[in-house]
Amino acid sequence: SSAPAPIIATLFPGDGIGPEIAESVKQVFQAAEVPIEWEEHYVGDQIDPRTQSFLTWESLESVRRNRVGLKGPMATPVGKGHRSLNLTLRKELNLYANVRPCYSLPGYKTRYDNVNLITIRENTEGEYSGLEHQVVRGVVESLKIITRQASLRVAEYAFHYAKTHGRERVSAIHKANIMQKTDGLFLKCCREVAEKYPEITYEEVVIDNCCMMLVKNPALFDVLVMPNLYGDIISDLCAGLVGGLGLTPSCNIGEAGIALAEAVHGSAPDIAGKNLANPTALLLSAVTMLRHLELYDKAERIQDAILNTIAEGKYRTADLGGSSSTTDFTKAICGHL
Amino acid sequence: SSAPAPIIATLFPGDGIGPEIAESVKQVFQAAEVPIEWEEHYVGDQIDPRTQSFLTWESLESVRRNRVGLKGPMATPVGKGHRSLNLTLRKELNLYANVRPCYSLPGYKTRYDNVNLITIRENTEGEYSGLEHQVVRGVVESLKIITRQASLRVAEYAFHYAKTHGRERVSAIHKANIMQKTDGLFLKCCREVAEKYPEITYEEVVIDNCCMMLVKNPALFDVLVMPNLYGDIISDLCAGLVGGLGLTPSCNIGEAGIALAEAVHGSAPDIAGKNLANPTALLLSAVTMLRHLELYDKAERIQDAILNTIAEGKYRTADLGGSSSTTDFTKAICGHL
Ligand SMILES: CC(C)[C@H](C(=O)O)[C@@H](O)C(=O)O
Ligand SMILES: CC(C)[C@H](C(=O)O)[C@@H](O)C(=O)O
Repeated sequence: SSAPAPIIATLFPGDGIGPEIAESVKQVFQAAEVPIEWEEHYVGDQIDPRTQSFLTWESLESVRRNRVGLKGPMATPVGKGHRSLNLTLRKELNLYANVRPCYSLPGYKTRYDNVNLITIRENTEGEYSGLEHQVVRGVVESLKIITRQASLRVAEYAFHYAKTHGRERVSAIHKANIMQKTDGLFLKCCREVAEKYPEITYEEVVIDNCCMMLVKNPALFDVLVMPNLYGDIISDLCAGLVGGLGLTPSCNIGEAGIALAEAVHGSAPDIAGKNLANPTALLLSAVTMLRHLELYDKAERIQDAILNTIAEGKYRTADLGGSSSTTDFTKAICGHL
Repeated sequence: SSAPAPIIATLFPGDGIGPEIAESVKQVFQAAEVPIEWEEHYVGDQIDPRTQSFLTWESLESVRRNRVGLKGPMATPVGKGHRSLNLTLRKELNLYANVRPCYSLPGYKTRYDNVNLITIRENTEGEYSGLEHQVVRGVVESLKIITRQASLRVAEYAFHYAKTHGRERVSAIHKANIMQKTDGLFLKCCREVAEKYPEITYEEVVIDNCCMMLVKNPALFDVLVMPNLYGDIISDLCAGLVGGLGLTPSCNIGEAGIALAEAVHGSAPDIAGKNLANPTALLLSAVTMLRHLELYDKAERIQDAILNTIAEGKYRTADLGGSSSTTDFTKAICGHL
């Protein structure tokens, strides 16, 4: 009998350290015999008129066709007349939910133990509408947009995620005591969806209080769902609890079942090409992609190998206090498979 | 020679535990011979048409006349047709800056040592404009307003505070990579003011990154200045680093030199009247009021007595793991004066 056809996935290695950490993923996937074939795309060096950005039309088509992809850091080129690469991807692919699992890495000590939560961020509207204008000189406005459709969609994703991942509680984060209509609509949608999931506990937490609770005792939270800007803030706060963006995975969910996993840290041009970068965030993001593809065995095996390598402590990159190269760290992970 | 005329200050004991913790302040001030006479005002039990809120016109006049006041927690009565008490005070008294010193209390252990920073929050506009509307069914908007006038005013306050309090750095917190016009205007104003204070280092930090840095290493920050909502979020986050809102002071600065210090924690109706409340936040807020009045000796002496009592650990209220009553804790502070 012949082997099943491989799954084709888009890979954006990205800029700076991107190609090195993408290479790490490719090697770990190969060692774990993940049945994935990568379709690689790079950011172009000029604006593609069809996307109004440095992202090529072909690369977006690749994600649309494959429905699954992995993205390294992209440095948006400085200059006017084009959109940020991250925002373009979110808009063009309608990536409506940003999911960030955040957990303490065994053996890597921070001020917090046993962090284990998931932030789910609405990724298309809110304060990111891009609608701003000057009313009169010295007075500017920006519009925050909340829609029933986008709120229901992300709430539905959050509850479905909780249910299918053995989670018990969803907390909707808001500031509806001040923004009664916008955040109020967001909450209303969360409540509607909550009713369909009686087995999941639902609660509402004001964002300022949420941040205080998170730094005092992150174990109070399980799955958090929230509008765009709050998600931006809280997901980074949570990453900080366990060591930063170099260690935390992220996955964007789009309509028609698209999943684009990404490392949300920067492209670190200062260490690019020096075999010093930590590939953990991109590797763990790739693991979320495998889970999305329901390749649970491969996902577990690779995640365990990454966490065991870090826990063992013998091979760690410089950002974690070690002196391993990217390639030695990667080899160590492959050895743990 | 006769004693100098006492300073008259407005006191809002507030609701719930408010009267008990206000009593604590009165006793400590008396023991320290602070030359202040209190003019007490309570929240009314019906809406005052002149303020459209449960705050009486007389109480606001009292603050305007005295220019200095202290406020306990106020529970906004539930129901429609009136404004939140806190927001009414900010609006009516034009309390444009909310200043929250946040420092580790010696002897009271949290995950963080040596936190010592000041958040300064624009308190009148931004996301708190109250301007929201439904565009069509299922689509709502809220307006964030940033003005040159309010941004310059709070930036000026922040740099002046830094200079007069021996601080070295001011960080402006923003999301101007997304809200280029609104947060961009805020930053532009901060930069203008920064130029007048060459002795103070000025930097700009994106809010998501700021939150990650704060939970990883709060010692990276000194004075932080920011628009309204970011200040709401970050000041609570910072309070969480050192133990919560029960321990952190707050002072609101208004035009014409008004200073209204306040405990920002809740009114804790469950323990009200039971002599269990922790008066620390209100006491330390009262200390910020003394500094505003340039009564530096009294301020130092009282602050030292509070911190020494907590550090000693013999008399602590239940929220800090002790079993002291409010009155015993207060007596212990008076004993340390
Ligand atoms: C780079 C920036 C536009 C982006 C955002 O604000 O969403 C980033 O912070 C993120 O979280 O992906
Ligand atoms: C109670 C609420 C309206 C208030 C605010 O959002 O400003 C509170 O969180 C604060 O920080 O004083």
